[in-house]
Amino acid sequence: MKIVKVGGSLLYKAKPLLESLKNLDEEIVIIPGGGEFANIIRKLDKNYKLNSSTSHKLAIECMDLVGEIYSEISGIKAYRTLFDLKREIKKEKVAILLPSTTLLSTDLAEHSWKVTSDSLSLYIAKFLNVKDVIIATNVDGIYREGKLLNIINANEIEGLTSVDEAFPTILKQFKMTAYVVNGLYPERVINIIKGKNTICTKIVW
Amino acid sequence: MKIVKVGGSLLYKAKPLLESLKNLDEEIVIIPGGGEFANIIRKLDKNYKLNSSTSHKLAIECMDLVGEIYSEISGIKAYRTLFDLKREIKKEKVAILLPSTTLLSTDLAEHSWKVTSDSLSLYIAKFLNVKDVIIATNVDGIYREGKLLNIINANEIEGLTSVDEAFPTILKQFKMTAYVVNGLYPERVINIIKGKNTICTKIVW
Repeated sequence: MKIVKVGGSLLYKAKPLLESLKNLDEEIVIIPGGGEFANIIRKLDKNYKLNSSTSHKLAIECMDLVGEIYSEISGIKAYRTLFDLKREIKKEKVAILLPSTTLLSTDLAEHSWKVTSDSLSLYIAKFLNVKDVIIATNVDGIYREGKLLNIINANEIEGLTSVDEAFPTILKQFKMTAYVVNGLYPERVINIIKGKNTICTKIVW
Repeated sequence: MKIVKVGGSLLYKAKPLLESLKNLDEEIVIIPGGGEFANIIRKLDKNYKLNSSTSHKLAIECMDLVGEIYSEISGIKAYRTLFDLKREIKKEKVAILLPSTTLLSTDLAEHSWKVTSDSLSLYIAKFLNVKDVIIATNVDGIYREGKLLNIINANEIEGLTSVDEAFPTILKQFKMTAYVVNGLYPERVINIIKGKNTICTKIVW
Protein backbone atom coordinates (compact mmCIF):
# COMPACT_ATOMS: atom_id res chain seq x y z
CA MET A 1 0.00 0.00 0.00
CA LYS A 2 1.16 3.52 -0.82
CA ILE A 3 -0.09 6.89 0.36
CA VAL A 4 -0.40 9.68 -2.18
CA LYS A 5 -1.23 13.09 -0.83
CA VAL A 6 -2.76 15.03 -3.69
CA GLY A 7 -2.11 18.60 -2.70
CA GLY A 8 -4.63 21.36 -2.86
CA SER A 9 -2.33 23.13 -5.31
CA LEU A 10 -3.61 20.57 -7.84
CA LEU A 11 -7.27 21.29 -7.04
CA TYR A 12 -8.20 22.46 -10.54
CA LYS A 13 -5.83 20.07 -12.33
CA ALA A 14 -6.06 16.82 -10.41
CA LYS A 15 -8.08 14.77 -12.87
CA PRO A 16 -5.24 13.25 -14.96
CA LEU A 17 -3.32 12.18 -11.84
CA LEU A 18 -6.38 10.70 -10.16
CA GLU A 19 -7.31 8.80 -13.30
CA SER A 20 -3.78 7.39 -13.57
CA LEU A 21 -3.90 6.25 -9.95
CA LYS A 22 -7.29 4.67 -10.55
CA ASN A 23 -5.91 2.45 -13.29
CA LEU A 24 -3.04 1.03 -11.25
CA ASP A 25 -3.21 -2.45 -9.84
CA GLU A 26 -1.70 -1.43 -6.50
CA GLU A 27 -3.34 -0.37 -3.27
CA ILE A 28 -3.23 3.43 -3.19
CA VAL A 29 -4.72 5.65 -0.50
CA ILE A 30 -5.25 9.21 -1.63
CA ILE A 31 -5.17 11.94 1.01
CA PRO A 32 -6.52 15.32 -0.16
CA GLY A 33 -4.87 18.61 0.72
CA GLY A 34 -6.93 21.59 1.86
CA GLY A 35 -6.11 23.83 -1.11
CA GLU A 36 -7.89 27.12 -1.62
CA PHE A 37 -10.43 26.23 1.05
CA ALA A 38 -7.71 26.05 3.68
CA ASN A 39 -6.26 29.30 2.35
CA ILE A 40 -9.54 31.00 3.26
CA ILE A 41 -9.17 29.64 6.79
CA ARG A 42 -5.67 31.17 6.87
CA LYS A 43 -7.10 34.52 5.78
CA LEU A 44 -9.88 34.30 8.34
CA ASP A 45 -7.30 33.41 10.98
CA LYS A 46 -5.35 36.57 10.11
CA ASN A 47 -8.55 38.64 9.99
CA TYR A 48 -10.11 37.45 13.25
CA LYS A 49 -7.11 35.92 15.10
CA LEU A 50 -8.89 32.60 15.43
CA ASN A 51 -8.10 30.12 18.13
CA SER A 52 -5.36 27.84 16.73
CA SER A 53 -7.40 24.74 17.47
CA THR A 54 -10.32 26.13 15.49
CA SER A 55 -8.08 26.90 12.51
CA HIS A 56 -6.63 23.40 12.72
CA LYS A 57 -10.07 21.77 12.82
CA LEU A 58 -11.52 23.86 10.00
CA ALA A 59 -8.46 23.34 7.78
CA ILE A 60 -8.89 19.59 8.30
CA GLU A 61 -12.55 19.88 7.34
CA CYS A 62 -11.39 21.63 4.16
CA MET A 63 -9.45 18.46 3.29
CA ASP A 64 -12.78 16.58 3.27
CA LEU A 65 -14.22 19.03 0.75
CA VAL A 66 -11.24 18.57 -1.55
CA GLY A 67 -11.51 14.81 -1.12
CA GLU A 68 -15.16 14.91 -2.16
CA ILE A 69 -14.20 16.88 -5.26
CA TYR A 70 -11.45 14.37 -6.08
CA SER A 71 -13.92 11.54 -5.68
CA GLU A 72 -16.48 13.23 -7.91
CA ILE A 73 -14.10 13.99 -10.78
CA SER A 74 -12.35 10.61 -10.76
CA GLY A 75 -15.04 8.18 -9.70
CA ILE A 76 -12.69 6.91 -6.96
CA LYS A 77 -14.72 6.15 -3.86
CA ALA A 78 -14.16 8.17 -0.72
CA TYR A 79 -14.33 6.90 2.85
CA ARG A 80 -14.61 8.58 6.24
CA THR A 81 -13.01 5.85 8.35
CA LEU A 82 -9.98 3.61 7.92
CA PHE A 83 -12.22 0.69 8.81
CA ASP A 84 -14.34 1.23 5.69
CA LEU A 85 -11.37 2.22 3.54
CA LYS A 86 -9.33 -0.88 4.41
CA ARG A 87 -12.24 -3.16 3.79
CA GLU A 88 -13.06 -1.68 0.39
CA ILE A 89 -9.54 -1.06 -0.91
CA LYS A 90 -8.97 -4.81 -1.26
CA LYS A 91 -11.34 -4.89 -4.19
CA GLU A 92 -11.28 -1.24 -5.28
CA LYS A 93 -7.44 -0.95 -5.09
CA VAL A 94 -7.60 2.83 -4.86
CA ALA A 95 -9.44 4.89 -2.27
CA ILE A 96 -9.76 8.49 -1.13
CA LEU A 97 -9.78 9.20 2.57
CA LEU A 98 -11.95 12.08 3.81
CA PRO A 99 -9.66 12.48 6.78
CA SER A 100 -11.49 14.69 9.28
CA THR A 101 -13.10 11.86 11.21
CA THR A 102 -9.82 9.99 11.64
CA LEU A 103 -7.76 13.08 12.40
CA LEU A 104 -10.15 14.82 14.76
CA SER A 105 -11.18 11.64 16.55
CA THR A 106 -7.52 10.86 17.34
CA ASP A 107 -6.24 14.46 17.66
CA LEU A 108 -2.52 13.60 17.64
CA ALA A 109 -1.10 16.54 15.74
CA GLU A 110 -0.09 19.95 17.00
CA HIS A 111 -2.77 22.60 16.49
CA SER A 112 -0.75 25.05 14.44
CA TRP A 113 -0.12 26.04 10.85
CA LYS A 114 3.22 24.22 11.11
CA VAL A 115 1.10 21.12 10.61
CA THR A 116 -0.76 21.03 7.33
CA SER A 117 -2.04 18.21 5.17
CA ASP A 118 1.57 17.11 4.45
CA SER A 119 2.24 16.21 8.06
CA LEU A 120 -1.29 14.97 8.57
CA SER A 121 -0.71 12.47 5.74
CA LEU A 122 2.09 10.99 7.84
CA TYR A 123 -0.30 10.40 10.72
CA ILE A 124 -2.65 8.58 8.36
CA ALA A 125 0.31 6.57 7.01
CA LYS A 126 1.19 5.59 10.56
CA PHE A 127 -2.34 4.32 11.20
CA LEU A 128 -2.12 2.30 8.00
CA ASN A 129 1.41 1.06 8.78
CA VAL A 130 2.67 2.46 5.48
CA LYS A 131 6.26 3.68 5.24
CA ASP A 132 6.29 5.48 1.86
CA VAL A 133 4.38 8.71 1.47
CA ILE A 134 4.18 10.51 -1.85
CA ILE A 135 3.46 14.23 -1.73
CA ALA A 136 2.08 15.26 -5.12
CA THR A 137 2.22 19.00 -5.59
CA ASN A 138 2.60 21.49 -8.46
CA VAL A 139 6.40 21.75 -8.43
CA ASP A 140 9.02 19.19 -9.44
CA GLY A 141 10.36 18.63 -5.94
CA ILE A 142 12.46 20.47 -3.38
CA TYR A 143 14.91 23.06 -4.66
CA ARG A 144 18.07 24.39 -3.03
CA GLU A 145 19.71 27.43 -4.60
CA GLY A 146 17.68 26.96 -7.75
CA LYS A 147 18.65 23.31 -8.15
CA LEU A 148 16.21 20.42 -7.87
CA LEU A 149 17.38 17.91 -5.29
CA ASN A 150 17.06 14.18 -6.02
CA ILE A 151 17.42 13.35 -2.38
CA ILE A 152 17.60 15.27 0.87
CA ASN A 153 17.94 14.37 4.51
CA ALA A 154 15.01 15.50 6.64
CA ASN A 155 17.51 17.30 8.89
CA GLU A 156 18.54 19.62 6.05
CA ILE A 157 15.07 20.59 4.90
CA GLU A 158 14.49 23.58 7.17
CA GLY A 159 13.97 26.79 5.24
CA LEU A 160 13.31 24.99 1.95
CA THR A 161 9.75 25.00 0.73
CA SER A 162 7.35 22.31 -0.56
CA VAL A 163 6.41 20.61 2.69
CA ASP A 164 5.13 22.03 5.94
CA GLU A 165 7.31 22.96 8.89
CA ALA A 166 6.51 19.98 11.09
CA PHE A 167 6.96 17.44 8.30
CA PRO A 168 10.69 16.60 8.68
CA THR A 169 10.43 15.99 12.42
CA ILE A 170 7.39 13.76 12.10
CA LEU A 171 8.92 11.89 9.15
CA LYS A 172 11.99 11.06 11.28
CA GLN A 173 9.91 10.20 14.30
CA PHE A 174 7.80 7.76 12.27
CA LYS A 175 10.84 6.50 10.30
CA MET A 176 9.11 7.07 6.98
CA THR A 177 10.34 8.00 3.50
CA ALA A 178 8.66 10.73 1.50
CA TYR A 179 8.73 11.75 -2.13
CA VAL A 180 7.83 15.26 -3.27
CA VAL A 181 6.74 15.06 -6.90
CA ASN A 182 4.95 17.13 -9.51
CA GLY A 183 1.43 15.73 -9.78
CA LEU A 184 0.89 17.52 -13.10
CA TYR A 185 3.02 14.68 -14.54
CA PRO A 186 1.14 11.58 -13.41
CA GLU A 187 3.79 9.26 -14.88
CA ARG A 188 6.28 10.54 -12.29
CA VAL A 189 3.97 9.58 -9.46
CA ILE A 190 3.40 6.18 -11.07
CA ASN A 191 7.16 5.70 -11.42
CA ILE A 192 7.66 6.28 -7.71
CA ILE A 193 4.90 3.82 -6.90
CA LYS A 194 6.53 1.24 -9.16
CA GLY A 195 9.98 1.84 -7.65
CA LYS A 196 11.41 3.38 -10.82
CA ASN A 197 13.62 6.45 -11.07
CA THR A 198 11.89 9.71 -11.92
CA ILE A 199 12.01 13.48 -11.40
CA CYS A 200 11.24 14.09 -7.74
CA THR A 201 12.86 14.71 -4.38
CA LYS A 202 13.18 11.79 -1.98
CA ILE A 203 13.29 12.76 1.69
CA VAL A 204 15.21 10.36 3.90
CA TRP A 205 16.35 10.62 7.53
CA MET B 1 -38.08 33.22 17.13
CA LYS B 2 -36.44 34.89 14.13
CA ILE B 3 -34.09 33.51 11.50
CA VAL B 4 -31.13 35.62 10.44
CA LYS B 5 -29.13 34.36 7.52
CA VAL B 6 -25.71 35.93 7.82
CA GLY B 7 -24.45 35.85 4.27
CA GLY B 8 -21.03 34.73 3.22
CA SER B 9 -20.49 38.23 1.82
CA LEU B 10 -20.04 39.26 5.47
CA LEU B 11 -17.47 36.51 6.15
CA TYR B 12 -14.63 38.86 7.07
CA LYS B 13 -16.87 41.48 8.68
CA ALA B 14 -19.47 39.51 10.61
CA LYS B 15 -18.27 40.09 14.15
CA PRO B 16 -20.20 43.29 14.99
CA LEU B 17 -23.47 41.85 13.71
CA LEU B 18 -22.99 38.55 15.53
CA GLU B 19 -22.15 40.34 18.76
CA SER B 20 -25.25 42.51 18.46
CA LEU B 21 -27.42 39.44 17.92
CA LYS B 22 -25.80 37.76 20.92
CA ASN B 23 -26.87 40.56 23.22
CA LEU B 24 -30.53 40.50 22.27
CA ASP B 25 -33.10 38.95 24.53
CA GLU B 26 -34.95 37.28 21.67
CA GLU B 27 -34.62 33.83 20.20
CA ILE B 28 -32.48 34.16 17.09
CA VAL B 29 -31.33 31.34 14.84
CA ILE B 30 -28.36 32.25 12.69
CA ILE B 31 -27.93 30.45 9.39
CA PRO B 32 -24.52 30.88 7.75
CA GLY B 33 -24.04 31.48 4.05
CA GLY B 34 -21.38 29.61 2.09
CA GLY B 35 -19.31 32.67 1.19
CA GLU B 36 -15.93 32.32 -0.46
CA PHE B 37 -15.90 28.61 0.23
CA ALA B 38 -18.99 28.11 -1.89
CA ASN B 39 -17.47 30.34 -4.57
CA ILE B 40 -14.64 27.80 -4.88
CA ILE B 41 -17.24 25.07 -5.42
CA ARG B 42 -18.73 27.23 -8.19
CA LYS B 43 -15.31 27.56 -9.79
CA LEU B 44 -14.68 23.83 -9.48
CA ASP B 45 -18.10 23.18 -10.97
CA LYS B 46 -17.17 25.32 -13.98
CA ASN B 47 -13.73 23.72 -14.20
CA TYR B 48 -14.80 20.07 -13.92
CA LYS B 49 -18.52 20.24 -14.76
CA LEU B 50 -19.43 18.59 -11.47
CA ASN B 51 -22.61 16.66 -10.95
CA SER B 52 -25.20 19.22 -9.74
CA SER B 53 -25.97 17.12 -6.68
CA THR B 54 -22.31 17.10 -5.71
CA SER B 55 -22.08 20.87 -6.07
CA HIS B 56 -25.23 21.25 -4.00
CA LYS B 57 -23.92 18.99 -1.23
CA LEU B 58 -20.47 20.58 -1.10
CA ALA B 59 -21.87 24.11 -1.09
CA ILE B 60 -24.03 23.11 1.88
CA GLU B 61 -20.96 21.73 3.63
CA CYS B 62 -19.33 25.12 3.06
CA MET B 63 -22.15 26.68 5.10
CA ASP B 64 -21.00 24.55 8.05
CA LEU B 65 -17.47 25.92 7.77
CA VAL B 66 -18.77 29.50 7.79
CA GLY B 67 -20.99 28.63 10.74
CA GLU B 68 -18.02 27.32 12.66
CA ILE B 69 -16.15 30.56 11.97
CA TYR B 70 -19.14 32.62 13.11
CA SER B 71 -19.33 30.57 16.28
CA GLU B 72 -15.63 30.98 16.99
CA ILE B 73 -15.54 34.76 16.52
CA SER B 74 -18.74 35.48 18.45
CA GLY B 75 -18.83 32.80 21.14
CA ILE B 76 -22.36 31.89 19.98
CA LYS B 77 -22.79 28.14 20.19
CA ALA B 78 -23.33 26.14 17.02
CA TYR B 79 -25.53 23.07 16.65
CA ARG B 80 -25.80 20.35 14.03
CA THR B 81 -29.42 19.36 14.63
CA LEU B 82 -32.62 21.29 15.29
CA PHE B 83 -33.23 18.98 18.21
CA ASP B 84 -30.12 20.27 19.99
CA LEU B 85 -30.62 23.83 18.81
CA LYS B 86 -34.20 24.08 20.02
CA ARG B 87 -33.34 22.62 23.39
CA GLU B 88 -30.45 25.00 23.98
CA ILE B 89 -31.89 28.18 22.48
CA LYS B 90 -34.34 28.45 25.36
CA LYS B 91 -31.52 29.38 27.68
CA GLU B 92 -28.90 30.63 25.18
CA LYS B 93 -31.42 32.79 23.20
CA VAL B 94 -29.15 32.84 20.17
CA ALA B 95 -27.81 29.87 18.25
CA ILE B 96 -25.95 29.11 15.03
CA LEU B 97 -27.12 26.19 12.93
CA LEU B 98 -24.47 24.19 11.07
CA PRO B 99 -27.06 23.20 8.52
CA SER B 100 -25.59 20.32 6.51
CA THR B 101 -27.02 17.56 8.68
CA THR B 102 -30.55 18.99 8.57
CA LEU B 103 -30.44 19.91 4.89
CA LEU B 104 -28.81 16.74 3.56
CA SER B 105 -30.79 14.42 5.80
CA THR B 106 -34.06 15.89 4.52
CA ASP B 107 -32.95 16.72 0.94
CA LEU B 108 -35.97 18.85 0.03
CA ALA B 109 -34.35 21.49 -2.16
CA GLU B 110 -33.57 21.40 -5.85
CA HIS B 111 -29.97 20.46 -6.58
CA SER B 112 -28.99 23.52 -8.58
CA TRP B 113 -27.26 26.85 -8.15
CA LYS B 114 -30.72 28.46 -8.27
CA VAL B 115 -30.91 27.33 -4.66
CA THR B 116 -28.26 28.84 -2.41
CA SER B 117 -28.14 29.54 1.30
CA ASP B 118 -30.93 32.16 0.91
CA SER B 119 -33.49 29.59 -0.16
CA LEU B 120 -32.04 26.97 2.15
CA SER B 121 -32.69 29.33 5.07
CA LEU B 122 -36.37 29.19 4.17
CA TYR B 123 -36.36 25.41 4.47
CA ILE B 124 -34.82 25.74 7.93
CA ALA B 125 -37.42 28.39 8.82
CA LYS B 126 -40.15 25.97 7.74
CA PHE B 127 -38.80 23.25 10.03
CA LEU B 128 -38.77 25.77 12.87
CA ASN B 129 -42.22 27.11 12.00
CA VAL B 130 -40.81 30.63 11.70
CA LYS B 131 -42.42 33.06 9.27
CA ASP B 132 -39.91 35.95 9.22
CA VAL B 133 -36.52 35.44 7.63
CA ILE B 134 -33.88 38.15 7.64
CA ILE B 135 -31.24 37.97 4.94
CA ALA B 136 -28.22 39.96 6.12
CA THR B 137 -25.89 40.75 3.26
CA ASN B 138 -23.43 43.51 2.30
CA VAL B 139 -25.88 45.76 0.42
CA ASP B 140 -28.73 47.89 1.74
CA GLY B 141 -31.48 45.83 0.17
CA ILE B 142 -32.93 45.20 -3.28
CA TYR B 143 -32.52 47.92 -5.88
CA ARG B 144 -34.57 48.59 -9.00
CA GLU B 145 -33.23 51.10 -11.50
CA GLY B 146 -30.76 52.38 -8.92
CA LYS B 147 -33.41 52.95 -6.27
CA LEU B 148 -33.57 51.02 -3.00
CA LEU B 149 -36.98 49.41 -2.58
CA ASN B 150 -38.65 49.45 0.84
CA ILE B 151 -40.97 46.68 -0.15
CA ILE B 152 -41.35 44.35 -3.10
CA ASN B 153 -43.69 41.57 -4.05
CA ALA B 154 -41.97 38.23 -4.56
CA ASN B 155 -43.57 38.08 -8.01
CA GLU B 156 -41.66 41.17 -9.14
CA ILE B 157 -38.24 40.13 -7.95
CA GLU B 158 -37.08 38.26 -11.03
CA GLY B 159 -33.98 39.78 -12.59
CA LEU B 160 -33.16 41.84 -9.49
CA THR B 161 -30.21 40.70 -7.45
CA SER B 162 -29.63 40.08 -3.70
CA VAL B 163 -31.40 36.77 -3.27
CA ASP B 164 -31.08 33.53 -5.19
CA GLU B 165 -33.29 32.56 -8.11
CA ALA B 166 -35.45 30.04 -6.27
CA PHE B 167 -36.08 32.31 -3.29
CA PRO B 168 -39.27 34.15 -4.39
CA THR B 169 -41.06 30.94 -5.35
CA ILE B 170 -40.18 29.18 -2.12
CA LEU B 171 -41.06 32.26 -0.06
CA LYS B 172 -44.54 32.31 -1.61
CA GLN B 173 -44.96 28.58 -1.27
CA PHE B 174 -44.11 28.74 2.44
CA LYS B 175 -46.08 31.99 2.94
CA MET B 176 -43.11 33.68 4.60
CA THR B 177 -41.88 37.28 4.77
CA ALA B 178 -38.25 38.14 4.13
CA TYR B 179 -36.12 41.19 4.80
CA VAL B 180 -32.94 41.90 2.85
CA VAL B 181 -30.74 44.11 4.99
CA ASN B 182 -27.16 45.34 5.18
CA GLY B 183 -25.49 43.34 7.96
CA LEU B 184 -22.62 45.83 8.14
CA TYR B 185 -25.12 47.99 10.08
CA PRO B 186 -26.18 45.69 12.91
CA GLU B 187 -28.71 48.22 14.23
CA ARG B 188 -30.76 47.75 11.05
CA VAL B 189 -30.98 44.01 11.65
CA ILE B 190 -31.92 44.65 15.28
CA ASN B 191 -34.61 47.13 14.17
CA ILE B 192 -36.20 44.49 11.95
CA ILE B 193 -36.15 41.98 14.79
CA LYS B 194 -37.80 44.52 17.08
CA GLY B 195 -40.44 45.40 14.46
CA LYS B 196 -39.13 48.92 13.92
CA ASN B 197 -38.70 50.71 10.61
CA THR B 198 -35.23 50.68 9.11
CA ILE B 199 -33.30 50.70 5.84
CA CYS B 200 -33.99 47.38 4.17
CA THR B 201 -36.20 45.69 1.58
CA LYS B 202 -39.17 43.69 2.78
CA ILE B 203 -40.25 40.91 0.43
CA VAL B 204 -43.94 40.04 0.59
CA TRP B 205 -46.12 37.81 -1.61
